[in-house]
Amino acid sequence: MSQLRAYNLSMSLDGFMAGPDQSLDDPLGVGAMRLHEWVYPTRAFRADHGLDGGTEGLDDSFVQRGTTGIGATIMGRNMFGPVRGDWGTWAEDHDGEPWTGWWGPNPPFHHPVYVLTHHPRPPLTLSGGTTFHFVYGGVEDAYAQATDAAGDLDVRLGGGASTVRQFLAAGLVDEIHVAVVPILLGSGERLFGELGERARDLDCVEMVASPTVSHVRLARQSG
Amino acid sequence: MSQLRAYNLSMSLDGFMAGPDQSLDDPLGVGAMRLHEWVYPTRAFRADHGLDGGTEGLDDSFVQRGTTGIGATIMGRNMFGPVRGDWGTWAEDHDGEPWTGWWGPNPPFHHPVYVLTHHPRPPLTLSGGTTFHFVYGGVEDAYAQATDAAGDLDVRLGGGASTVRQFLAAGLVDEIHVAVVPILLGSGERLFGELGERARDLDCVEMVASPTVSHVRLARQSG
Repeated sequence: MSQLRAYNLSMSLDGFMAGPDQSLDDPLGVGAMRLHEWVYPTRAFRADHGLDGGTEGLDDSFVQRGTTGIGATIMGRNMFGPVRGDWGTWAEDHDGEPWTGWWGPNPPFHHPVYVLTHHPRPPLTLSGGTTFHFVYGGVEDAYAQATDAAGDLDVRLGGGASTVRQFLAAGLVDEIHVAVVPILLGSGERLFGELGERARDLDCVEMVASPTVSHVRLARQSG
Repeated sequence: MSQLRAYNLSMSLDGFMAGPDQSLDDPLGVGAMRLHEWVYPTRAFRADHGLDGGTEGLDDSFVQRGTTGIGATIMGRNMFGPVRGDWGTWAEDHDGEPWTGWWGPNPPFHHPVYVLTHHPRPPLTLSGGTTFHFVYGGVEDAYAQATDAAGDLDVRLGGGASTVRQFLAAGLVDEIHVAVVPILLGSGERLFGELGERARDLDCVEMVASPTVSHVRLARQSG
């Protein structure tokens, strides 16, 4: 059975996964680029983006684990792009060019990606085995389609924060890895809202600090 | 010049420093006792409470640093006790016994402690050098009195969460040490609210994980 795993979620010490005022120029929100600086030097990240070299060790190992054994990815519309509302209207407003994601013609997924949206759009197939499917039935629908597509592999839960919160609230997350970045953002979008009773679903299975971030991994209680 | 240092603030991964429904029976709120379990086995904590033995190492070292070089402590009324409203009314309702803190006749401070309150009360001197002073002029007043009393030593900012948030918002905190406990509480009182621009006051100077918690220490930028 596929596990739903959220990996490499970078969160500031004050709990924010994105800064305020997300936009096309500032897709993570003001100040939040700093949350991801620990990822870029790693060998695993560089390899995913066609680059040689990079750091090894703890951070690299977590980045690598986030992509190993994954057969499908789920993400919110905000992680896919800045488009709000109808997909066609956006294309009309941009010289007829539809939005195809942040990742260029060869995205680093290489498997089906399920994008939560309320606006219909046919599947979008890019190079390297990545097809974006647009899902309209909320988290349960995305979960069903993605686990079905992943087969024996796991499903990765991408972001953004509101998507992760919805899956946590629905009790669908089997494992979550948070990289606590030792900075204060001051405002933005929280990774964890008020989970209430659902907070008891997950227990710590690993905690370790690199020089840059504290890695905390929680997993569903198996009892 | 005295530094204002908040130390050993235990925070859940989802950002809570106290659970919901704080009461006399459950002073930290439901479920939040778990936040402090890392402290009790340490040699420094045990020594403060007249007990021998205990663990050494990282956790012990942070607990120890929190009490070393401290000449005065500031805390909110909720940390001092469960009393709301007039101090005298509480005493009348409890067989004439005034509330004297959670710590018994010999509190582990051994220096002046400044308690934020809106209700007047004369200073309360207990054994071992601890005198509780009640402060009515908010965080600035408490800061002025405590730094004056501490002389060449530092001032420790106790809790609870709302007191720490008020001092952070006022830009008065020189150093803050957070112990990130890898559990989810689901609800309660947040250590960090929306600090806004004040978030830029503090930078990470140390981050390290023990088997039980991740220690993150932030300090005021010296430039």
